[in-house]
Amino acid sequence: MDIRMYDLIEKKKRAGELTKDEIFAMIRAYTKGDIPDYQMSAFCMAVWFNGMTDRETFDLTEAMALSGDTVDLSQFGDRSVDKHSTGGVGDKTTLIVAPIVATCGGIVAKMSGRGLGHTGGTVDKLESFEGFKTSLSPEDFTAQVEKIGLAVIGQSGDLAPADKKMYALRDVTATVDTIPLIAASIMSKKLAAGTHSIVLDVKCGSGAFMRTPEDASELAGMMVKIGRAHNRNIAAVITNMNIPLGHAIGNVLEVKEAVEVLKGRGPDDLREICLTLASAMVKLSCGVSIEKAKEMTADALLSGRAYDTFCRWIEAQGGEKEKALDPELFGIAEHTYDIVAERDCYFESCNTEMIGTAAMMLGAGRATADDIIDPRAGIILHKKPSDKLKKGDVIATLHTERPATIEAAAKTFESALQFTDNAVERQPLVFNIIGLD
Amino acid sequence: MDIRMYDLIEKKKRAGELTKDEIFAMIRAYTKGDIPDYQMSAFCMAVWFNGMTDRETFDLTEAMALSGDTVDLSQFGDRSVDKHSTGGVGDKTTLIVAPIVATCGGIVAKMSGRGLGHTGGTVDKLESFEGFKTSLSPEDFTAQVEKIGLAVIGQSGDLAPADKKMYALRDVTATVDTIPLIAASIMSKKLAAGTHSIVLDVKCGSGAFMRTPEDASELAGMMVKIGRAHNRNIAAVITNMNIPLGHAIGNVLEVKEAVEVLKGRGPDDLREICLTLASAMVKLSCGVSIEKAKEMTADALLSGRAYDTFCRWIEAQGGEKEKALDPELFGIAEHTYDIVAERDCYFESCNTEMIGTAAMMLGAGRATADDIIDPRAGIILHKKPSDKLKKGDVIATLHTERPATIEAAAKTFESALQFTDNAVERQPLVFNIIGLD
Repeated sequence: MDIRMYDLIEKKKRAGELTKDEIFAMIRAYTKGDIPDYQMSAFCMAVWFNGMTDRETFDLTEAMALSGDTVDLSQFGDRSVDKHSTGGVGDKTTLIVAPIVATCGGIVAKMSGRGLGHTGGTVDKLESFEGFKTSLSPEDFTAQVEKIGLAVIGQSGDLAPADKKMYALRDVTATVDTIPLIAASIMSKKLAAGTHSIVLDVKCGSGAFMRTPEDASELAGMMVKIGRAHNRNIAAVITNMNIPLGHAIGNVLEVKEAVEVLKGRGPDDLREICLTLASAMVKLSCGVSIEKAKEMTADALLSGRAYDTFCRWIEAQGGEKEKALDPELFGIAEHTYDIVAERDCYFESCNTEMIGTAAMMLGAGRATADDIIDPRAGIILHKKPSDKLKKGDVIATLHTERPATIEAAAKTFESALQFTDNAVERQPLVFNIIGLD
Repeated sequence: MDIRMYDLIEKKKRAGELTKDEIFAMIRAYTKGDIPDYQMSAFCMAVWFNGMTDRETFDLTEAMALSGDTVDLSQFGDRSVDKHSTGGVGDKTTLIVAPIVATCGGIVAKMSGRGLGHTGGTVDKLESFEGFKTSLSPEDFTAQVEKIGLAVIGQSGDLAPADKKMYALRDVTATVDTIPLIAASIMSKKLAAGTHSIVLDVKCGSGAFMRTPEDASELAGMMVKIGRAHNRNIAAVITNMNIPLGHAIGNVLEVKEAVEVLKGRGPDDLREICLTLASAMVKLSCGVSIEKAKEMTADALLSGRAYDTFCRWIEAQGGEKEKALDPELFGIAEHTYDIVAERDCYFESCNTEMIGTAAMMLGAGRATADDIIDPRAGIILHKKPSDKLKKGDVIATLHTERPATIEAAAKTFESALQFTDNAVERQPLVFNIIGLD
């Protein structure tokens, strides 16, 4: 089909609805470089103002999903399941959730990203284990999944290249923040990644795309609709990003905390979120009721079987099993620095995005794709919003191998915190769950 | 001033108002190539939806006017005056109006464009006179203006390059049709061209930017506001483009018709429009009342003094005076072809843009900037909308040096005409005049 991009811009500008053929032809031509960026950015801005119908959004998602390689997981039938997080600070849930789900019989065959900016990536956390292989041959990948129900590798192949190109353009033309385009972007990658079931962890709050539970629910609702239109089992959990999850931020620090949870200890908030996500995944992939799924996941965790799966997983991908068994062997970063309460008060709130940035400055993340990560760098939050503080209490400890960064990182970290003299109510961890009834 | 274009797109997207500094910095950076087209097109689309305030529009116009060379006509004090047409088919008014105004004491020191697509350019019409120089040294230009009050040359220098670049981008991103950007585009070139007074001929109807008198009046009103904000004397005439002006389309054919009018003959509609525009220009540049200006221009035309100025003008710029005195010496094109009424009926209406395209196909205009024009090619419209036709009446005659083009041009021309069995009311020539009270 031959299209004139000019006509499609004009149509969307006049609030018209593009046909499926038009959307597919547009995405094909844009991916090939036959439509210039200056036309696509004008189109995206017209979408920002006039939106897209559900049908257009479904078609756009499909066109982008089919723009490059796709992963075939059909051999695993209905059991394959993926969790997608819209990007968080201190989000080590995959390390805990994946082994719980695999223990319950779900198939977690996952591609995961690296971290950039204030958010971390699961692949980076896994690479804390020396020798851990983040790329496997298709045969090894399948064999491992069949054996232990679980494998996580880095992005390989060229999944949804149209989305990659379009997202980079939207990022510099102020056209990211529109629900049809965000939803199509995320879901195109999920469709290309091939799992039959999908649980979305939609973050909400400071440092997330969506600032309010209402906006996050709208986005989640659209993604659930897209998934169903393409015959996927799908649900979404809207979680609070006004507070980092657990206490640890930084790769080794997060691995240690994840192992604590897998051992039946660790922070309550992290355990609760992990069980919520895991039970949603088990319900969808194993075809049981949500009550049954909750039972199964709690049992997998508390019995230690999920931890056992974790250790087998790390070993199967070449990581050091001793450290999975005893993460204290990682040691700690050479330099630590305590952030201390200056007066008696309450910890009111924090800017999660800035805390992520402080951790990045300490060496826990990348400012640009070429930066090198120090596995042991990061932040331990001893106190969290709503906690009561006494003068001299240690609020947090910064960990780094680069002492020169401490001063600036501490400044950034401190400017992310607000204190008050009045007691503060604890915020909910989960705002909303969509698609599980 | 250092700006982030991203922030300006975001601001306009949220219906914010850009500061003067922001607009100037944006236009400076875009002209230099420091802002990519894909950001500017997103910005223009945001303007399409959210508009610009008057103040923003004034500043944008000024920033574009100052983005390149500017013409200094200060030596002529308040007397310099320009007419700008938004582009018409068969618009030979400059050939008639300029000598009338110069005869009355106005200073017409004008840069004019070449034609492209369905519209003709004054410079092309003047080049029908062999030897006519469309570029003059600044000294020769000034000397001629001082001697006869009139010179018309082609675009020279780099006037408003920001507008040129931005217009080319808007043209392919469906962001042309928004009043602040159209008004700023036209007025930036007029401000750079340096005349103290400006009369705008805003065309309205098929083949014009503005399809309704209301839209055209809104655009004209904005341009008048911009001119006044920059201390120009300015007025606008909204004219009907549903009908080509006069009978002739094509360079030599239009010169012949212009001379007819200058000799006190020629079509009534063309004479009326020319006197309307000329009297507006004389009022603004000579500081007389509109009644006085009407008297002066009518007298200049009817006394033959304007025609005398015309002949001196052509001669001064190196054109053949004999042909100015007797345009029959141009001869006619080698091939002519009559379009004939197939039945008794009324001429209901015509699509002016398609008629312009037919003339271009015959050799009277350029499809691309490199095409060569045949001066004698074009169309004579013997009949005009509202005329009563008898079967066999010649409606129009096509003139060309390229017989192979006749069939396709005739087809295009014929498809531009509508006929009816019912009598048709004659349309007004002038819809509205703004800024003359």
